[in-house]
Amino acid sequence: MDSFHTQHAPFGAFASFTLGLLDAPGGFGQSLGGPARQNVYVGVRPAPDQPWRMLPFFERKAPAESAFLGEGAAAAPAGAEPFEILHPPRFGRSLGWASDRWLLGPLVFKLCTPFEHVPDPATLDAEAARLHFAPLVCGYLEYDNTHCEEPVELLFGVGLPDRPWRPLADDGMPFVGFAAGRAFSYATLPSPEVTARQGFAPFAVGYRDATGGHRLGAESALLFTVPAGQKRIYPLVLAFFQGGPVTTGLACEFLYTRHFADLEDVLTHGLTHHAHYVRLAAQRDAELLGSKLSRDQQFLLLQATHSYLGSTQLLIRGDRPLWCVNEGEYRMLNTFDLTVDHLFWELEWHPWTVRNTLDLFVERYSYHDTVHMPDGRTAAGGLSFTHDMGVADQFSSPGRSSYECRDLTGCFSHMTAEQLLNWVVCAVTYAEKTGDHAWLEAQHAVLADCVTSLHRRDDPDPAQRNGLIKWDSDRCGPGGAEITTYDSLDASLGQARNNLYLGVKTLAAWLLLERAFHRLGNTTAAADAGATADRLAATLSVKFEDETGLFPAVFEAGNRSRILPAVEGFVYPLYLGMTDVLASDGRFSILLGQLGQHVARALQPGICLDAGSGGWKLSSTSHNTWFSKIAIAQYVIRQLFPQALTAPARAADAVHAGWQRQPGCGAFAMCDQIHSATGAALGSKYYPRGVTTLLWLRE
Amino acid sequence: MDSFHTQHAPFGAFASFTLGLLDAPGGFGQSLGGPARQNVYVGVRPAPDQPWRMLPFFERKAPAESAFLGEGAAAAPAGAEPFEILHPPRFGRSLGWASDRWLLGPLVFKLCTPFEHVPDPATLDAEAARLHFAPLVCGYLEYDNTHCEEPVELLFGVGLPDRPWRPLADDGMPFVGFAAGRAFSYATLPSPEVTARQGFAPFAVGYRDATGGHRLGAESALLFTVPAGQKRIYPLVLAFFQGGPVTTGLACEFLYTRHFADLEDVLTHGLTHHAHYVRLAAQRDAELLGSKLSRDQQFLLLQATHSYLGSTQLLIRGDRPLWCVNEGEYRMLNTFDLTVDHLFWELEWHPWTVRNTLDLFVERYSYHDTVHMPDGRTAAGGLSFTHDMGVADQFSSPGRSSYECRDLTGCFSHMTAEQLLNWVVCAVTYAEKTGDHAWLEAQHAVLADCVTSLHRRDDPDPAQRNGLIKWDSDRCGPGGAEITTYDSLDASLGQARNNLYLGVKTLAAWLLLERAFHRLGNTTAAADAGATADRLAATLSVKFEDETGLFPAVFEAGNRSRILPAVEGFVYPLYLGMTDVLASDGRFSILLGQLGQHVARALQPGICLDAGSGGWKLSSTSHNTWFSKIAIAQYVIRQLFPQALTAPARAADAVHAGWQRQPGCGAFAMCDQIHSATGAALGSKYYPRGVTTLLWLRE
Repeated sequence: MDSFHTQHAPFGAFASFTLGLLDAPGGFGQSLGGPARQNVYVGVRPAPDQPWRMLPFFERKAPAESAFLGEGAAAAPAGAEPFEILHPPRFGRSLGWASDRWLLGPLVFKLCTPFEHVPDPATLDAEAARLHFAPLVCGYLEYDNTHCEEPVELLFGVGLPDRPWRPLADDGMPFVGFAAGRAFSYATLPSPEVTARQGFAPFAVGYRDATGGHRLGAESALLFTVPAGQKRIYPLVLAFFQGGPVTTGLACEFLYTRHFADLEDVLTHGLTHHAHYVRLAAQRDAELLGSKLSRDQQFLLLQATHSYLGSTQLLIRGDRPLWCVNEGEYRMLNTFDLTVDHLFWELEWHPWTVRNTLDLFVERYSYHDTVHMPDGRTAAGGLSFTHDMGVADQFSSPGRSSYECRDLTGCFSHMTAEQLLNWVVCAVTYAEKTGDHAWLEAQHAVLADCVTSLHRRDDPDPAQRNGLIKWDSDRCGPGGAEITTYDSLDASLGQARNNLYLGVKTLAAWLLLERAFHRLGNTTAAADAGATADRLAATLSVKFEDETGLFPAVFEAGNRSRILPAVEGFVYPLYLGMTDVLASDGRFSILLGQLGQHVARALQPGICLDAGSGGWKLSSTSHNTWFSKIAIAQYVIRQLFPQALTAPARAADAVHAGWQRQPGCGAFAMCDQIHSATGAALGSKYYPRGVTTLLWLRE
Repeated sequence: MDSFHTQHAPFGAFASFTLGLLDAPGGFGQSLGGPARQNVYVGVRPAPDQPWRMLPFFERKAPAESAFLGEGAAAAPAGAEPFEILHPPRFGRSLGWASDRWLLGPLVFKLCTPFEHVPDPATLDAEAARLHFAPLVCGYLEYDNTHCEEPVELLFGVGLPDRPWRPLADDGMPFVGFAAGRAFSYATLPSPEVTARQGFAPFAVGYRDATGGHRLGAESALLFTVPAGQKRIYPLVLAFFQGGPVTTGLACEFLYTRHFADLEDVLTHGLTHHAHYVRLAAQRDAELLGSKLSRDQQFLLLQATHSYLGSTQLLIRGDRPLWCVNEGEYRMLNTFDLTVDHLFWELEWHPWTVRNTLDLFVERYSYHDTVHMPDGRTAAGGLSFTHDMGVADQFSSPGRSSYECRDLTGCFSHMTAEQLLNWVVCAVTYAEKTGDHAWLEAQHAVLADCVTSLHRRDDPDPAQRNGLIKWDSDRCGPGGAEITTYDSLDASLGQARNNLYLGVKTLAAWLLLERAFHRLGNTTAAADAGATADRLAATLSVKFEDETGLFPAVFEAGNRSRILPAVEGFVYPLYLGMTDVLASDGRFSILLGQLGQHVARALQPGICLDAGSGGWKLSSTSHNTWFSKIAIAQYVIRQLFPQALTAPARAADAVHAGWQRQPGCGAFAMCDQIHSATGAALGSKYYPRGVTTLLWLRE
């Protein structure tokens, strides 16, 4: 039985209404690293003498009035209404790219989180900005009572674990609903068919004030009575608001606060433009349904999209927008390892956010280092960028991440080379994809610095260079060594030095630099980049083991791990359509041929297919596998090495989707680090990065 | 073994650093209804090869880095330092009126929460306002290493359950410490003897960034190295900050935000003026120690003071201060039942807050009603006031409380008569005590409305009046009836109509009105009030049961409960020194004689002394007893009826203090509703009202 949370999230509000895991709470979460813990009540009562039929999104709680009643607590509140909690197949769920829909007989409960192409905020007029940046989720309850002769009651409500609700009517708002202080709220349009309920218990109002509710109640609901013979759609708006500065280091506010005064303003906007948002969501849903992706592939993309949106945070710093994607459960700000993977999503939907992030990396999160070799030699290094920009709404100091530490050779070490490559591939891919050559021109010097830095990390002595990163940043300390983004895997992907994954990514970076310098008219630099790419390709080819038909993961110490991210670097030339370098009989024919053999051999059960589950494993020697990276590998392999796709390798989409649909991952919405045998999340929960699956729509 | 939390709270910030319960977390809490859940680390390491000796204020947690390491989590972090958690008698604690001190050999850990006479904010210059309203708690670590030849290490730290700390040094602050976003922080002055530690574990830094910490860490601490042969006192400042509007209904900000820019400004102020605050706390401590109160009585007053301060919230609404006391775990705003009991504290320390609250009750939380009798007769009523002004930072609509509901005869019904009496006794007591006769003049019409309303609740027909409240507000609905503040007790104190407690309080109100109208030169009204008081006294006297020597609690339905709040109303004339009406041979000699007999009979084991514990019970028929009200009864009885105090009745202070010192109450700092047999809190936890004990200092 499927059981998974989904983040229902507006664009850029770092907020989610999380719902879907069976027998679990969820609800409104602002800036959280996981689901909120609010009971959510959705149900129908066909007749007053029947129990409420409820979706299973709440936990039973002790009666809250006992704190007031001392020992005089009643066993059950007056007027308690019976209810039953349903499970599939008594209801159905249908998650779309921009909506989530539950079906319970004639009842439809839907939440919509439309997304669309978002222009640079600087180009938007006020009304367009409100439409794009409204921190809200639209939804509705629909019921077809056309053929019934009795009215039917519907219910939507939320129970807070730690505070009473505020009825919106108290402050004269022209809609029916509730708010939690100034932070979040839900509402519908007023109608004789709608009443509001508030109290200590969701299925009883034991105590009624002059308005029929009880303002001490942490439980609230909207009750809708669908008349006999009628069909109704009752709109819902779920709104978030956080005013004032929300970050430190760089003091920023949510950009939406420049366009909305408060929660009430957001609700008014949402109820006014409800149809627009519902329509937009339906359009996105239809687009994905109409794609060539399989049902499992669609599921992976849409579930990922929901978690990505929940991690997005559009801020304003003075009068300049500041784009931030928070790293899921870890809440690191603009982790560069994620930016580079969100690249494809953002270039499709809001490319200016890529530029925004790259600019901030240059402005505040870049540094120059010195480098060393394991044998103790040291040398000047060069430019690179931090792993992230801080954590939990706290921007770190200039030139420093929240993640990177000294004197380590594993998790939490520096990723100097990886982030340098990330800036290069993001910058060139952005400029090439968008045609923003003016920006590229402005980055000419930065790109030149990147080249110098890349070369020196290969070797400070030009005569010794073979293209591979071999020198470690002194930021690691004398005993430390750089790692790659694959920090929690074993050495096969962990070590940056002489690493196959990073080698191929470095090759891609040089190819992109070659193109960029051509574009910039810097033929000398272009020639150098091209020559370096060729040299590196030759170096890599030599590492190929003819006897096994595989590459080792690390070109040191006899490493024999096999990794799928060997081909990850090719995603950038592939994405940019650089057919010249991708041709199997072209410039890199030898390397591509070897990589084709490599992935064909690797995609076998017991190597990079889990022998039990059949899921893809990034490394043969670790059963910690990362879905977002699998998705990139799938894209590259299907495009460049289709012959490597055995039947079990092709079948794995169902395995990967199954992981996300079960509570092992699903309790935390989209998860990235997964145990390849059990499907349980090992980390990277509530995670935005699965949007790499957007690449699949290009196939 | 004593084990209890204490709220360490600045004035007016609705914030507490809660600490003291053994083997329990606590820490920074903003606007909470109970203790926070942060680990607090305080300890000493006599030598690097010895374990840390820690106060027991934390829970052991799973290593937080496992979320990052996937399956690669280390069993124990690198460099883990052993520690032992101490329990009494290995350390001592000494809680003062304005400080809390733990002694662990030569280590002193102290937190100071000085309070003082606070003038009306309108009269304060900027620097005085900063001194009074700084949202901070000062403390220090002191160690006498004079006679040792080795340095000693001290540690103070806090672990957050859900977010990483921010090192203050990151933003260039000239002190050493950590902040949680923009919300709270702790810091000390920089010194070569101080280092900061941040990571996933408090007793190890497995990962070190360029500054030696790790910004992903939710655990942080300050380490102090006391040199051999030296004595040191290291200052600590714990700061809170919440900017922008914090309430709804009435949009208010914390008044301190007009005087402090942010958390860093508060820390700077606190470290600059540290000595001032420590000195002020010592002065308060000494005052209470020098009082005639017994050790148990002192404990009850000082523990209550800490919780009161934690519930105070000084807001600003436009340019006008708005005073709010939050109702402990319930967080209702300015519950009038509490205002009337906080009256004595506030008139001593900041009388303008009483006036501020009374004005807001008139302006926004007053109403006019109609009334009815149980037999169905209805009539015009009059002016009264709501039970409270809202809940959880949400001001309720004008004329409405968050608490009061319709159609009830118990908890959550209306308290119309009680609140009317509360306004009268607060207003006259304020004016008489402060001499603010101008304000009383301005309230002349309101007082006249109160008189009309009081009379009509006795009986709309003047010929039928006997002084007792007998008509219920129609706000209760036709089947409902008013209750008193004693909402969770049984009918002996619950029902407003024909209630002994409310009758005597009504008598007090008329006596205060008599005095007020004399003051206002309204001799007609004064004469009417006096005559009504005499009539009511006569009515009450008739209810006395000569055969038992007791009053019944309710003059209906054969009620035979016995209650101590029978004498509560006399606290107001007693407080104002109205000796004419208090003389045992004077105007109310008969009634006072009867009440003296009543309390003497009631204060017997099995009646209003718990037969097991010996604690005072408010009612013979309920073992839910409220400490703050016991304290008032003790004051009145010791002053007016000392002969009623049997030895067991006198001994009960130890019982009452014991309740608060044990986890049954102490897990929630000061508690008010207590099971008289077990000492466990039944409600009203984390509660401000125990400051009624200030009255004892007048004895």
